[in-house]
Amino acid sequence: MSSPSIPSPPTIGVFDSGFGGLTVLRALIRRFPSARFAFIGDTARLPYGSKSRRTIARYAVESAQFLVREQGAEFLVIACNTASALALDAIESAVPVQVLGVIEPGAMAARAASRSGDVLVIATDATVKSHAYAAACQALGLRALEKACPLLVPLVEEGWIRHPVTAEVIRIYLDELLADASAKQLTPDTLVLGCTHYPLLRPLIEQAVPEGMRVIDSAESAADAALRMINGRMLSPSSGPDPEPLIRCFATDSVDKFQRLGSRFLDRPVGDVELVDLGG
Amino acid sequence: MSSPSIPSPPTIGVFDSGFGGLTVLRALIRRFPSARFAFIGDTARLPYGSKSRRTIARYAVESAQFLVREQGAEFLVIACNTASALALDAIESAVPVQVLGVIEPGAMAARAASRSGDVLVIATDATVKSHAYAAACQALGLRALEKACPLLVPLVEEGWIRHPVTAEVIRIYLDELLADASAKQLTPDTLVLGCTHYPLLRPLIEQAVPEGMRVIDSAESAADAALRMINGRMLSPSSGPDPEPLIRCFATDSVDKFQRLGSRFLDRPVGDVELVDLGG
Repeated sequence: MSSPSIPSPPTIGVFDSGFGGLTVLRALIRRFPSARFAFIGDTARLPYGSKSRRTIARYAVESAQFLVREQGAEFLVIACNTASALALDAIESAVPVQVLGVIEPGAMAARAASRSGDVLVIATDATVKSHAYAAACQALGLRALEKACPLLVPLVEEGWIRHPVTAEVIRIYLDELLADASAKQLTPDTLVLGCTHYPLLRPLIEQAVPEGMRVIDSAESAADAALRMINGRMLSPSSGPDPEPLIRCFATDSVDKFQRLGSRFLDRPVGDVELVDLGG
Repeated sequence: MSSPSIPSPPTIGVFDSGFGGLTVLRALIRRFPSARFAFIGDTARLPYGSKSRRTIARYAVESAQFLVREQGAEFLVIACNTASALALDAIESAVPVQVLGVIEPGAMAARAASRSGDVLVIATDATVKSHAYAAACQALGLRALEKACPLLVPLVEEGWIRHPVTAEVIRIYLDELLADASAKQLTPDTLVLGCTHYPLLRPLIEQAVPEGMRVIDSAESAADAALRMINGRMLSPSSGPDPEPLIRCFATDSVDKFQRLGSRFLDRPVGDVELVDLGG
């Protein structure tokens, strides 16, 4: 679509262990409507959550190098909470481009939103065990209480996004979390969605939180942070008509599930998902 | 506990990709109360369901060889539906002992139970995609309708075994499956639990099935088949007082989750879970 006189837009690389990070890609597309994107989901080796830090770093670096060397990515977004928590340094050392994770932007958005300084975080079991959000929040002067909500990812993947069962599960988890906060004498006013699957549940979650509680979507926060970090040339939309992002999606396995569920996460067709072998 | 004059009982090896197969071990213990058992869960490399047949066979053979060579197993039960479906031949070729899977015993129990010849099977997405139960049922002259129930494993692992949300999810899945059976003009009278996690949901499932429908637990069926196959010396309980099985549990990763959840599956303390490195 771009005319030859306009320099071709740079590429933003997005990495996840699965396809949940497509919600981060979706948020990025809204902010960079004429950019090129390369997304890789390391589906052959998920879940990262149960693996050691060294293994996760090795896997994440391989995906990051694929995005930079083979897809020409000039900026990387690590749309995977586990890799953001455990491998951001390793990725930064391994590639010559700027790298952004999802955790720090989520914590920064929570700090901007919270008046009480008490923040709730819901995430997968692995992310909660890493305490990465609690640490990032604490570094910003917030108190954070984390809760693992292991049923929410399967419910999203089952497609029960507005289902009464999902609403009930969310209510149970939030009741437990609020009771725990109350027992610890916290007065939380902000809830961070610390998993890339959870933005799809945002309508149900917003219905379930107490009146006045702010909901922070770390996919949106990461895209906002990318907007601040990436230099001006990527911000100007192409001067041609109807700027349209160019998106290529790669997976290391399970292209089927990626393709079947991905469009719901991306909010547009994912198109062909290309299978890539990273060794491993 | 055994006196020196009594020959030491042989060892039954049990293999799963995770710890769900502990329900099979539980069923075996009831039938061989004085045997030795070695169980390995290849937790570092789960889920098997999304991997290729060749990879699954390689992994399963490594675990089988560990059980035979290093633990002295004289009989193997493959308590993993995916490995039973895709790697039974490979395992049989790789070890010099008898090997039993979970799928064929489940299908045989269904044939014994069903009058109409129409059988329902609920299982994980990967097991359903393999159509291993449908093929095994068909080989026995049954018509089988399979349904993936991907929320049931996470609900069991969350510990919501008798929870109203789980009852509701089971009701929804069974309603869909029965409607599908009706549309296909089947008259099912038997339901096979084709996943090693599902025996923990048996009370809720039995409440949810139509009046008169038989529920087949493939863990119990596999243990019954083992009882028929294993030679007499293992059947006689030790003549000492209070025969007590000797159980050793191994995992390739995530000993924590195995230890935390395993006792619920085994219906007794799993004790120490030993970490073992199979290469990989």
